[in-house]
Amino acid sequence: MKILNGGLENVSGFSFSAIKCGIRYEDKLDYALILSERPCNAVGVFTTNRISAAPVKICRERINNKINAVLINSTNANACTGLEGYDHAINLTKDIAEKVNIPKDSILTASTGIIGRQLPIEKMLASHQALIKNLSQNNGHSVAQAIMTTDTIPKEAAASFEYKGKVYSVAGIAKGSGMISPNMATLLAFIITDASISKSDMDIIFKRIIKKTFNSITIDGDMSTNDTAILLSPDSNEYLPKESLGEFEPALEYVMSKLAELLVFDGEGATKSVRVNVINAKNNDEAELIAKAVSNSLLVKTAFFGNDPNWGRIACAAGYSGAEVYEEKLSIYINKTCLLLDGTPADIDYKELENTLKERNFSVTIDAGIGNGEASMLTTDLSYDYVKINAAYST
Amino acid sequence: MKILNGGLENVSGFSFSAIKCGIRYEDKLDYALILSERPCNAVGVFTTNRISAAPVKICRERINNKINAVLINSTNANACTGLEGYDHAINLTKDIAEKVNIPKDSILTASTGIIGRQLPIEKMLASHQALIKNLSQNNGHSVAQAIMTTDTIPKEAAASFEYKGKVYSVAGIAKGSGMISPNMATLLAFIITDASISKSDMDIIFKRIIKKTFNSITIDGDMSTNDTAILLSPDSNEYLPKESLGEFEPALEYVMSKLAELLVFDGEGATKSVRVNVINAKNNDEAELIAKAVSNSLLVKTAFFGNDPNWGRIACAAGYSGAEVYEEKLSIYINKTCLLLDGTPADIDYKELENTLKERNFSVTIDAGIGNGEASMLTTDLSYDYVKINAAYST
Repeated sequence: MKILNGGLENVSGFSFSAIKCGIRYEDKLDYALILSERPCNAVGVFTTNRISAAPVKICRERINNKINAVLINSTNANACTGLEGYDHAINLTKDIAEKVNIPKDSILTASTGIIGRQLPIEKMLASHQALIKNLSQNNGHSVAQAIMTTDTIPKEAAASFEYKGKVYSVAGIAKGSGMISPNMATLLAFIITDASISKSDMDIIFKRIIKKTFNSITIDGDMSTNDTAILLSPDSNEYLPKESLGEFEPALEYVMSKLAELLVFDGEGATKSVRVNVINAKNNDEAELIAKAVSNSLLVKTAFFGNDPNWGRIACAAGYSGAEVYEEKLSIYINKTCLLLDGTPADIDYKELENTLKERNFSVTIDAGIGNGEASMLTTDLSYDYVKINAAYST
Repeated sequence: MKILNGGLENVSGFSFSAIKCGIRYEDKLDYALILSERPCNAVGVFTTNRISAAPVKICRERINNKINAVLINSTNANACTGLEGYDHAINLTKDIAEKVNIPKDSILTASTGIIGRQLPIEKMLASHQALIKNLSQNNGHSVAQAIMTTDTIPKEAAASFEYKGKVYSVAGIAKGSGMISPNMATLLAFIITDASISKSDMDIIFKRIIKKTFNSITIDGDMSTNDTAILLSPDSNEYLPKESLGEFEPALEYVMSKLAELLVFDGEGATKSVRVNVINAKNNDEAELIAKAVSNSLLVKTAFFGNDPNWGRIACAAGYSGAEVYEEKLSIYINKTCLLLDGTPADIDYKELENTLKERNFSVTIDAGIGNGEASMLTTDLSYDYVKINAAYST
């Protein structure tokens, strides 16, 4: 596996386009198209929110088709828009399909932005000629830009792997951002490869890596109405054999891990990334409960922001996580400094600890002291800017 | 039932004291004692956090004893303090009991403040003479002040009721505040009455009202390590008969509702109180899930702060609440203005709505459109000040 610079443009057989359609704002790249030369197999993971956006509904209907394209817009989620919103998404994808001469059910779609407003359908249809005309393998970066909402940086990653002397590429883009957890804004991720992988292999590998990457930062994959992560791989008479998957999987994992890191790094208003490790919990599921509770605690997150080694809030969150926790067996560390050992507060140099917490990255380890369960999550602090960004989003 | 001014001092048979012991800060009332002339029956509701503070452990051990006193300190939670912290709480209550000549197991105790630091036991023991000397029926208000942490106002309420020509009083004090939900700081509430109610009657009525009041604001009663709500009523050979409870319960409910309102009003950095109503959910439990998810959503709360009628976030929270929700049956209102009707966005005057959201109080109603389940919760917005208060608490 080799890390590559840039993003989607590393993958041959695809072209990309992004334009400023003016869906909600003037002068923002907001409408994008990914087109494959060959029909692709697709696998996807979508929100489990009971309210799902029109584009998510369409993806669910089409994900098992051969897929040729993905149409994406930002600044409007096309969620809670009723039948009218659904018809809009159908009509937009149909029009693109006709214009690029692919089956109308071979195009997936995703949206992100404000909920509950209808798309400016006429304006969008009128932009399709320009969107298609702009297609080029070199425009990958502009698609990463076009899917941004409150993201401050475009998120892209790419890697290559070799199998039997041939080099294949994997690349992806993503957008967050929200605080990522506990109330994420929409997560969109589009990953493509020029390696032909069978749909069943793709499915297993993609879901395994999702669990380690996007689901270890978003914590609950079920939050937003629009969450969508899609992997496309060209269909073929001859898929890469099982033995090659050991080369493909690390490349895909690198791309998705990198995107996950960038998502955390760019969490709304976040000033630091904190790794929350749980060890010796009753089992892995219970370790995850603790990691989630600590990662999601507003009191813990604001303490991180304030460089405040207030480890009691960490213990408190572990206590209400739902996992089996015994005070007298609980230990807590920041980096390697022990704050609580078997339920007894350690003698702490608070001044030194405060300096650790001023770093951009540090880890918190919670040792439950009762089993072998482990979990790890990335979280962020909660800053003034989180409130600022979210207090004035729709108006 | 008659509403009374003031707080604890309305209830005869009790005396109160609060002093500046200097437990963590100089010049703050931080140590308080409530003493009853007669042994009381007590009922209590305590945190369900797996990590509970030493004083909570002691309350659980003693709540079925006859109770003569409650010893309370602020600025230090005595939580995660191991056996040493437990011994401290035992020794402090024992010393008070000896000095006021009551059984050593007839005194309850509560603490609130930072987790994981040992109490300054010598200083506290040395203050006991002064604490006891200061006891007076007129000092109720100072106890309300002494239990405050980040609260900005003391919280007290009182009411009286008449039964067969005799007037009885009920009064209480409480402290919050945290954002109240989803990550509450400690909730402490102490309610006393001069009416002799049997322990079994008290228990049923207290828990019923807790559900409607404190548990409808704190959302999860299981958050803090120290949450404690206690009701004391003097023991007697002759309890008030069942038929009188129809007079007692409204008085108690008024006191607890008023305290709950004050807690929300004084939520950390909150600038408004929002009533979240859920109607026509599958059942009451599912209605509660929706009310909780909406009340807890950071995106909803920051939108409230920003006067932003971003109702899509409300729909999104309902969607991930875990309750049965169907987009095409979902309707959302702010006050009486319909924003979403059966899954279709209403034609909204956003400017007018923004003005509604600038009010200090408004309501959000979520109509799930599928059953008869109802729930109601009070929540707050999330402001810059929430972050500010919590970023610099322990250092």
